Amino acid sequence: MNNQRSEKRNIKLVIEYDGTGYHGWQSQINAVSIQDTLEQAITKVMCHPVILIGAGRTDAGVHAFGQAANFFTSSKIPTEKIPYALNSALPDDIVVREAHIVSQEFHSRYSAKGKKYRYIINNSTFPSALERNRGYYCPYKLNTGLMEEALHLFRGEHDFKGFMAAGRPVKDTIRNIYEANLWQNNNRIVIEVSGNGFLYNMVRIIVGTLIDVGRSKLSIIDVERILKEGDRSKAGKTVPPQGLYLVEVYY
Amino acid sequence: MNNQRSEKRNIKLVIEYDGTGYHGWQSQINAVSIQDTLEQAITKVMCHPVILIGAGRTDAGVHAFGQAANFFTSSKIPTEKIPYALNSALPDDIVVREAHIVSQEFHSRYSAKGKKYRYIINNSTFPSALERNRGYYCPYKLNTGLMEEALHLFRGEHDFKGFMAAGRPVKDTIRNIYEANLWQNNNRIVIEVSGNGFLYNMVRIIVGTLIDVGRSKLSIIDVERILKEGDRSKAGKTVPPQGLYLVEVYY
Repeated sequence: MNNQRSEKRNIKLVIEYDGTGYHGWQSQINAVSIQDTLEQAITKVMCHPVILIGAGRTDAGVHAFGQAANFFTSSKIPTEKIPYALNSALPDDIVVREAHIVSQEFHSRYSAKGKKYRYIINNSTFPSALERNRGYYCPYKLNTGLMEEALHLFRGEHDFKGFMAAGRPVKDTIRNIYEANLWQNNNRIVIEVSGNGFLYNMVRIIVGTLIDVGRSKLSIIDVERILKEGDRSKAGKTVPPQGLYLVEVYY
Repeated sequence: MNNQRSEKRNIKLVIEYDGTGYHGWQSQINAVSIQDTLEQAITKVMCHPVILIGAGRTDAGVHAFGQAANFFTSSKIPTEKIPYALNSALPDDIVVREAHIVSQEFHSRYSAKGKKYRYIINNSTFPSALERNRGYYCPYKLNTGLMEEALHLFRGEHDFKGFMAAGRPVKDTIRNIYEANLWQNNNRIVIEVSGNGFLYNMVRIIVGTLIDVGRSKLSIIDVERILKEGDRSKAGKTVPPQGLYLVEVYY
């Protein structure tokens, strides 16, 4: 009863990466992507070409603690050895942290139930040498109490069309935000958001809007109105990619 | 009564840097050092050549949150503008965080009363992509309770000749450790040590010894004996530079 596909194991990987040196997750011509780099390492280790399906595309400069991806392989290499074998073939800014056998039907993108993102703001007088590619340097005085209050407005099910990059239309702009929290540790402000899905640039536009609230350029009532009316031009700017981390993909 | 020197302001800087791209603090021929990079930026901004005196040399790969250094200048640029001016002339892995006028007698090295260092161990199964140049990847199971107990032995005044790199003899190997603490945050073990001075590689050898304690290769009694007898060959190995941070210089 075996067909060719079911003879192959479907392997799910959990991957950490520093996005600084890459033109994002997705394969591109004339640019080094994380997907391509991983596919080359997997091909080398498994001794056959593979297509790696990622849970989501991350933009150039965006990092991941727990990106998920899957591929089919006919290789006999034991699953628990896969992270070691792949890491030995990968540059040190991409690390495979886990490998699991999953069902034949598992698809990293379509099977995902949600994702968690983190955004880091370095709220200091001067930029940080050590955190320069790990956070967004924002020297303005920020009222984090107001930012937290505004962030909590995003919890629950909303139409997020005001918080989506222009020119990337999708039919369904309703998303459900499960958790949205903000905390501060010295000069570092951390914002974590988990939900069933995210529109293009949604987290970065939410954070840009929170910064406007923290600077008193927008009020809580303004944010409520933007969320209700869905006017992208009224929301804050899209903050830079280097502060963004894909923390986890839920299945 | 003014002589040429007293007409010049003595400026103390506090500097953060990512040591990854440099061959250490000290000026070298045919290698880029942090001192040289700073001197070039200061010369450009002040419009005259300077000699920058650092509080201490850091090795290649070692980082700093708060290195201190001073130089004399005849420039009229206001002191509070100096960090902005220098940062605009520096690469983004070196940041001047503070500038102060200090007395003519102030000397970053000779006036220092002590220093604080931090060492970060990434105690995880796989190396970290994001922390790869920011900590020492150590995958072994470590008993941090024993490591903390051993670390506390170093507090106070001791002859640290067993914890000094071989081949770099100094006359006086007695140092006073004011504070020595260890804490753990998920997979990250942080060790912080402050004292009146440190021998060459002293922090890195102490941490290497603590790791041996954490792995049960050395006991608390062994560490007491090494500290008493001063035999470098009995202490742990020198852990790599990328986990080390010069946190602060005390004056």
